[in-house]
Amino acid sequence: MKKGKKVRTVPPVKRIHYFGRLGSRRTRFSVDRLGGKGASLAYMRSLGLPVPPGFTITTEVCAEYYDRGQKLPPGLMDQVEESLAKLEKEMGKEFGATESPLLVSVRSGAAASMPGMMDTILNLGLNDQTAEWMAEATENERATYDAYRRLIHMFGDVVMGVDHELFEDAFAEIKSKYSVVDDTEVPSKGLRELVGKYKQIYKKNTKESFPQDPRKQLRLAIQAVFNSWNAPRAVRYREINHLHGYLGTAVTVQAMVFGNLDDCSGTGVCFTRNPATGEDKLFGEFLVNAQGEDVVAGIRTPRDVQEMAEWNPKVLEELREMKWVLEGHFKDMQDLEFTIEGGDLYMLQSRRGQRTGAAAVRIAVDMVDQGIISQEEALLRIPPQAMTQFLLPSYSSSDKEGSDVLTRGLPASPGAARGKLAFTAEDAVKRAEAGEDVILVRRETSPEDVDGMHHARGILTSTGGMTSHAAVVARGWGKCCVVGAGALSINAGKQTVTVDGKKFGPDDTLSIDGSTGEVMEGEVDHSEPELSGYFGTVMEWGDEHRALGIRANADTPEEALRARNFGATGIGLCRTEHMFFGPGRIEAVQEMILSDSTRAREKALAKLLPYQREDFKGILEAMKGFPVTIRLLDPPLHEFLPRDKKRQDLLARTLGVTPGMVEERVEALEESNPMLGHRGCRLAITYPEIPVMQVTAIVEAAVACRRAGIRALPEIMIPLVGSVKEFALLRDLVEQTIEDVMKAENYSGNLQIPIGTMIEVPRAAMTAGEIAGIADFFSFGTNDLTQMTYGFSRDDINSFLPDYLSQGVLDKDPFFSLDQTGVGRLVALATSEGREGNPDLKVGICGEHGGEADSIEFFHGIGLDYVSCSSFRVPVARLAAAQAALRIDGWENSD
Amino acid sequence: MKKGKKVRTVPPVKRIHYFGRLGSRRTRFSVDRLGGKGASLAYMRSLGLPVPPGFTITTEVCAEYYDRGQKLPPGLMDQVEESLAKLEKEMGKEFGATESPLLVSVRSGAAASMPGMMDTILNLGLNDQTAEWMAEATENERATYDAYRRLIHMFGDVVMGVDHELFEDAFAEIKSKYSVVDDTEVPSKGLRELVGKYKQIYKKNTKESFPQDPRKQLRLAIQAVFNSWNAPRAVRYREINHLHGYLGTAVTVQAMVFGNLDDCSGTGVCFTRNPATGEDKLFGEFLVNAQGEDVVAGIRTPRDVQEMAEWNPKVLEELREMKWVLEGHFKDMQDLEFTIEGGDLYMLQSRRGQRTGAAAVRIAVDMVDQGIISQEEALLRIPPQAMTQFLLPSYSSSDKEGSDVLTRGLPASPGAARGKLAFTAEDAVKRAEAGEDVILVRRETSPEDVDGMHHARGILTSTGGMTSHAAVVARGWGKCCVVGAGALSINAGKQTVTVDGKKFGPDDTLSIDGSTGEVMEGEVDHSEPELSGYFGTVMEWGDEHRALGIRANADTPEEALRARNFGATGIGLCRTEHMFFGPGRIEAVQEMILSDSTRAREKALAKLLPYQREDFKGILEAMKGFPVTIRLLDPPLHEFLPRDKKRQDLLARTLGVTPGMVEERVEALEESNPMLGHRGCRLAITYPEIPVMQVTAIVEAAVACRRAGIRALPEIMIPLVGSVKEFALLRDLVEQTIEDVMKAENYSGNLQIPIGTMIEVPRAAMTAGEIAGIADFFSFGTNDLTQMTYGFSRDDINSFLPDYLSQGVLDKDPFFSLDQTGVGRLVALATSEGREGNPDLKVGICGEHGGEADSIEFFHGIGLDYVSCSSFRVPVARLAAAQAALRIDGWENSD
Repeated sequence: MKKGKKVRTVPPVKRIHYFGRLGSRRTRFSVDRLGGKGASLAYMRSLGLPVPPGFTITTEVCAEYYDRGQKLPPGLMDQVEESLAKLEKEMGKEFGATESPLLVSVRSGAAASMPGMMDTILNLGLNDQTAEWMAEATENERATYDAYRRLIHMFGDVVMGVDHELFEDAFAEIKSKYSVVDDTEVPSKGLRELVGKYKQIYKKNTKESFPQDPRKQLRLAIQAVFNSWNAPRAVRYREINHLHGYLGTAVTVQAMVFGNLDDCSGTGVCFTRNPATGEDKLFGEFLVNAQGEDVVAGIRTPRDVQEMAEWNPKVLEELREMKWVLEGHFKDMQDLEFTIEGGDLYMLQSRRGQRTGAAAVRIAVDMVDQGIISQEEALLRIPPQAMTQFLLPSYSSSDKEGSDVLTRGLPASPGAARGKLAFTAEDAVKRAEAGEDVILVRRETSPEDVDGMHHARGILTSTGGMTSHAAVVARGWGKCCVVGAGALSINAGKQTVTVDGKKFGPDDTLSIDGSTGEVMEGEVDHSEPELSGYFGTVMEWGDEHRALGIRANADTPEEALRARNFGATGIGLCRTEHMFFGPGRIEAVQEMILSDSTRAREKALAKLLPYQREDFKGILEAMKGFPVTIRLLDPPLHEFLPRDKKRQDLLARTLGVTPGMVEERVEALEESNPMLGHRGCRLAITYPEIPVMQVTAIVEAAVACRRAGIRALPEIMIPLVGSVKEFALLRDLVEQTIEDVMKAENYSGNLQIPIGTMIEVPRAAMTAGEIAGIADFFSFGTNDLTQMTYGFSRDDINSFLPDYLSQGVLDKDPFFSLDQTGVGRLVALATSEGREGNPDLKVGICGEHGGEADSIEFFHGIGLDYVSCSSFRVPVARLAAAQAALRIDGWENSD
Repeated sequence: MKKGKKVRTVPPVKRIHYFGRLGSRRTRFSVDRLGGKGASLAYMRSLGLPVPPGFTITTEVCAEYYDRGQKLPPGLMDQVEESLAKLEKEMGKEFGATESPLLVSVRSGAAASMPGMMDTILNLGLNDQTAEWMAEATENERATYDAYRRLIHMFGDVVMGVDHELFEDAFAEIKSKYSVVDDTEVPSKGLRELVGKYKQIYKKNTKESFPQDPRKQLRLAIQAVFNSWNAPRAVRYREINHLHGYLGTAVTVQAMVFGNLDDCSGTGVCFTRNPATGEDKLFGEFLVNAQGEDVVAGIRTPRDVQEMAEWNPKVLEELREMKWVLEGHFKDMQDLEFTIEGGDLYMLQSRRGQRTGAAAVRIAVDMVDQGIISQEEALLRIPPQAMTQFLLPSYSSSDKEGSDVLTRGLPASPGAARGKLAFTAEDAVKRAEAGEDVILVRRETSPEDVDGMHHARGILTSTGGMTSHAAVVARGWGKCCVVGAGALSINAGKQTVTVDGKKFGPDDTLSIDGSTGEVMEGEVDHSEPELSGYFGTVMEWGDEHRALGIRANADTPEEALRARNFGATGIGLCRTEHMFFGPGRIEAVQEMILSDSTRAREKALAKLLPYQREDFKGILEAMKGFPVTIRLLDPPLHEFLPRDKKRQDLLARTLGVTPGMVEERVEALEESNPMLGHRGCRLAITYPEIPVMQVTAIVEAAVACRRAGIRALPEIMIPLVGSVKEFALLRDLVEQTIEDVMKAENYSGNLQIPIGTMIEVPRAAMTAGEIAGIADFFSFGTNDLTQMTYGFSRDDINSFLPDYLSQGVLDKDPFFSLDQTGVGRLVALATSEGREGNPDLKVGICGEHGGEADSIEFFHGIGLDYVSCSSFRVPVARLAAAQAALRIDGWENSD
């Protein structure tokens, strides 16, 4: 006992909770005090369900046990005796009697599920004498001695610390002696022998005999459960999962019931609804004349729970009734354990059932229709991520069965894809256009690969993280993508990829799963998406509750249309740089970059103008009536020039300059840290002719739309602003250009184009009040803001991120879920100071975090106007935003 | 006049300030109202000094003039008449009289010196008649008509807007007609002709005759001065120099005195003390029988003002007396203009004299001794930068005379250096060791060049900014360095550098000036440093006032010793990575990096341990009794591997591995943005064996020192921390290592080693409260903090910085002077929240800004404990810190 530490003393009345006919107290069945298991049993019993009686020693006693230096509190065992006496009376059996004795199970159970602690000990109370009686009474010597040897093994191992290998070795000897392989083949005679051996092992290692006194068994078992709370595995589990503040574990002692008494007995497990599809029908299995663990052990093949209709329709009907009682009270789909003893049904467990995303959606909607839960409750319990399952082709586990998983990368963009391997973007384009399904396999991708990525069915890279180029682009398109599959060794020159000792070439097929990161050999089947009515219902309910607007990041009319289909009410980020890579465009871009005068650059830009105008027109049309935030050119210019000598020479020939000139310009543009280099608004300030061309294209497109009766609502966003002066200079330029173009177009309509900025440089956040004074909107670029606030290059983070995650330095990848403490504080500060500087400021976020549920809750909490995310995350965002509103702002319960 | 704008109306009493015997009002000679020139004349007059009388129309009138749409306020000219009447009375002459007329000068003068406005018009009042009389009376026809033609030219050009080229063309014609080259050779006849031509030009272009009415001349001249306030050049000048809030310009009308009346007359300019050395002796020149502009024009060679002793000792004595009067009142060294008319001295100007840094120091100290100013005033008026002039060899302007300045780069590290050219680090080392003086010439430098840089006399690069690798390293050593000299075209392979059409090779000599950035051809003389008594006095005075501690950034015992000599009382940043490059070390470092197991890395690190221990021992000894903050390894590992194939192959041979392995490792370590990559504490977390070795070396060194009776005070600093978890993990590791080593060393002394962190990642600043809870100190790494807060890579910023500065987006390079608004706000926030988290937290700064005066004032203002800078900036920092304390906290004036 630690000096000076105060010892808790739990009052006797709070130490033990009895559940049963006799003396069950009506109380709040506190999960904190009784543990999950104890509370569920007590609750079921209080509902009048048939639960074998028993009692639970509370978690507070466990805390007192530790306060006292691992000693049972004085008087506890007296109270256990009292409860035991009640139990004996209720069951009409005596604990420790020679004939027809009361047997009990002892189970641990904390408030949260916690692997690593001791599990159940069954059949406590068995000893040599009671075993003899039972073998005879049940006419099942084998089962009796099998139970007895299990008791000694488990008790010896868990309670007394005897090395479990000693027991296993002895079992192996017996099997060898009887020349059998499976445990179940050992005859009852062998099991009797084994019990003898086990008792010897027990005695040799504990210096005492296996306790024949059931009371001693019980006391030691209770202590063992308490001790297991601080077993290293349990402590580690709590650390990893940040489970703090728990008192300890409860101990439940419960009368045994026997599913293996006769052919009117049985045991089973079932879900109250189908956990895979959500269908409202009991789903599970049972075994006649069997004990609980047999179902799990797979010794006999269990039967579908629905087949109970033939065996014992009354029990099935009872189960169905209990389903409604339990769901009505727990207000959720349940995972049940039950035993039938001589035709009577007993409930041994009822807990929340695990389910797939699709099932979660269907169950939630059905339960609202059935009046079990409110719409709001339904919305809150669907994992937002589940919504994506409705949008994409996917592998089911049966699809994958038998397939060879070669390795696993990061699940960068969900979906299923299969195809032959293309090792260059050009090859992917060529073969896709010839009708072939290809997977583009690259070490990493760059903007030059975009066309090939677009043509491929899926993208697979060996480097890069969740926000690498490949990942971001693929997510934007909803294209299946696996990145950072480090086990792949790619040789693009030889067109081979080697993994796990196998080599694949252009004619081999791989299948990738963007939801799990799995890379599989050959062609694996998958199912196409189906937007069912459940999806629509949930989205509709959510939209009624959310405060955040949901926009999408989209760069093409097709993406914009898809975003609208998925429910986006605006484009929050339309990147213009991807538009620079199409054929006919990239040449003009390169010509512009290689020009050495403003006039020459303007000439090259003039060639781009018509393309850009058409791009913008298409997107504005697709989003008619909804705002489209167009970001001016952002990446550094070197991204548009070829890096390899061969393509540089080709470019020189195309432009009619010397190869040396191209090489020199590429070198001059090279940067040590391109992320922090000459890009964003810095480009616009040094080469104002670029934004002038882009703004011209935007205004011309908008005017053309308006004249065609289409309500185009463009917004112009200036990237990478770090100071109010940058923004002021460029705002003037943009406004002047808008005025000039409207004059040139002779358009006098009311074309109010809001001009705002991305907040992605920490300095912009720190000076947001100033910037907001002259900005119409802010959009947080949380990707770059995270990079700069943490000082993490997302392209390089993989060299230390795994260590950071495994050592707990980071809880999660900050590029996936917003770092609320650091980056989030900047976002909140900039939002509030921005609004002080300009009360009309519209504030949104367009980084990857716009589609992640925890981040969305944060954004709702600080009062942003909207989030913008890739179109495939729009449904996730819609639901997450509704949940955030419900959680933070609460709601009127309609119950 | 702008609609709705309120028109100021200046009350008549405030419109004009008369200075002279008659009616001079005692008033505050407000520079804001009278302008610099007007206030100085009025002030001198009020002191009883001989100033030709006159009057000043205040700046407020200029503002009213603009409020009224560029119209003179009603009644103004009536008041001018009143003042003119006083002036006529005082001078006994009449403005516009045919004989012995009153002539006046009209001068502009705003509160701040402001080039671009109209300057002086002399001799106003001259017309055809008065010119005739003067030519006769002065017996100097030539001078009279020269003055008259100047009046017409200047009046026509400035007042009436006649193209000045028309006047110049006419002058050229006259010179050609008289076959002379210089203006002064034109005979008086020619000048009479020229006056005629000028009057024709005037009439042709203004449609009126040159005004013969002196009153008209005066009114037009006053308006012209007001108009010149908004001349484009003046407006631009105010914009560039951020001169806001000024009312306008004043107009001073002053009676002319004539230095060219006779041989008892003359004119001159002088400083009250030597502006180059500070010596307390009049310094200037004069001309007998001449007018003001002749001294400047260089027509005749002026004589040293001291020679006046021979010509007119009374005047010299008067000048000396005036010096004391003026210095006593203006409390500073003055720059004087004077004219002697018939033996009488007149003062025409007295303003603060410009001076060199060395002079500023000597003058300030002398003035304290002379009781003119207080110590505090003296400290406040010395530009801190001046202190560096005492520390380094330097070129005087006479040294440079006749030298050929080839180009100018950035003055990265002050000093003078000359030598033959070395194009590689190896060559520099080899030739320097052979006794040659070399300048290392590189496009840019990298850590691999450090040894060569160390051996060179000076460093010259064609790329990179003030905080590039070359600049930072050179400043640390106080080695002369010029960077970013973009005009240099360097071909390292051919060992040539081409600039300005000239080509230089390894046997050619260049001289570079690290204080100006100049690159000169050949060997230019320079003078060696001399720490005079003045330097010591100023430093001593400053130390009495400053609150900030001053530490130095130093990596070697020599640097540490120099830092102590310069007054540092601790090392604020001892970088350990430079220590990794010495011979015998880099091989071990490379072996470590190429190892593929912890054990192999530990083996390689074991080889480094003795070197590191000796490094630390040397520095701790040098700084005995003072703290030494040692930063654990910071840069990414790839910086230690060779980039070129040849050296990679060599490394492979040395280590006995295949060249492919080296190449592969180099590639694997390559990063897209090394600045944001795998470095700093991230290295320490993934390779804990590195900090363990370094901490072991530190503790072993400290123990060895202590045992030898040397009071070693190491502090351990963990770089690039972004979250409290990183710091917690590494603090544990460091503490454990300290304990282990002390145990192994069997040392039981009290070796308290503070453990702190750099705050250089924005996230660290945003979570400083948490981090401070377990840190002993913070040291702001403002270089990296600026990079990440602005999103500026200092290696790449030169692609847009020039545009940013020229367009006013940035006022100054934020890597030179701290961005107080953005980065500074983070520093202030982290300091206050850090101290809340830990009231004992020591807080300093060790970025480049630690040696820059404005930044130091900021750091003092937010209450940091110390600044740390390169040793050569220590004296600057000491003085700047004293100034900050005096400016912000004030002082008891001892006057």
